[in-house]
Amino acid sequence: MKTLSDAFEHTLQDIYWAENALAKALPKVSKSANNAELKTLIDSHLKETKGHIKTLEAVFKSIGQEAKGEKCDAMDGLLKEADGLIEEASGHALDVSLIGAAQAVEHYEIARYGTLREWAKVLGHDEAHDLLTSILDEEKAANSKLTALAVMAVNKAGKNGKK
Amino acid sequence: MKTLSDAFEHTLQDIYWAENALAKALPKVSKSANNAELKTLIDSHLKETKGHIKTLEAVFKSIGQEAKGEKCDAMDGLLKEADGLIEEASGHALDVSLIGAAQAVEHYEIARYGTLREWAKVLGHDEAHDLLTSILDEEKAANSKLTALAVMAVNKAGKNGKK
Repeated sequence: MKTLSDAFEHTLQDIYWAENALAKALPKVSKSANNAELKTLIDSHLKETKGHIKTLEAVFKSIGQEAKGEKCDAMDGLLKEADGLIEEASGHALDVSLIGAAQAVEHYEIARYGTLREWAKVLGHDEAHDLLTSILDEEKAANSKLTALAVMAVNKAGKNGKK
Repeated sequence: MKTLSDAFEHTLQDIYWAENALAKALPKVSKSANNAELKTLIDSHLKETKGHIKTLEAVFKSIGQEAKGEKCDAMDGLLKEADGLIEEASGHALDVSLIGAAQAVEHYEIARYGTLREWAKVLGHDEAHDLLTSILDEEKAANSKLTALAVMAVNKAGKNGKK
């Protein structure tokens, strides 16, 4: 990797791997959650994630490339962390921790899509820029929903004396 | 982990490990960067990170606990990703990729400190809440500086025909 274009393609392959890994991991997370709203949110984000995979395939196509994934160590670590929570936590601790872990995933994706769409703009990949912006907006919205749920779930944990 | 309090302590140990790992990794990142402003920013963030470690020790103390780290898979993955960039990229691609990786780290920390300080509030750990908020504010400021630098560095890469 020497040029901005190389960095763009590398990061695109990285996030394509990451979204596929996330789509594989989310059903287990949904199954483990106790809170019904959290389950619903995860299930809806799984649908969105599958949509992001399709959109990323359109981004690859728009720059004349085949969609290809390259292992993303960061997402791998984020998902390992969620797996550890499912093993180690239960009850309220599991729900609030899973919301926290999901927010960490969203923040990671917000950082990457923010970077990618700016690079796309400089590289003159207008279609890619717009497609990446549409994913970024959905990730931001997902994070906002998680924040609202976090406040509700954590306060519930507090009120029930489950501190 | 069953209670919110358990989740708080676990996540605190997690981020304490993460900040220590980051402090160990940053000197190599600074050495690898070509862009002088990026080097300066990383060096200044290393100082801040060392400060965050001390502040986290004060948080542990404020809740009557010994400071203790537990491996954070997410930060481990984020740092592996940065290491991979140092090996695989050079020139402009390395600088813009390192800025992107640093933003991913900042976003991860923003997510975790945002969660931790809200939990601290519900748990009635007022001193911990204020200390965690002070770290959160510094992470947000660091991310803003990286965004400004990213725009400058990427445009420079564009202008120099290093697309």
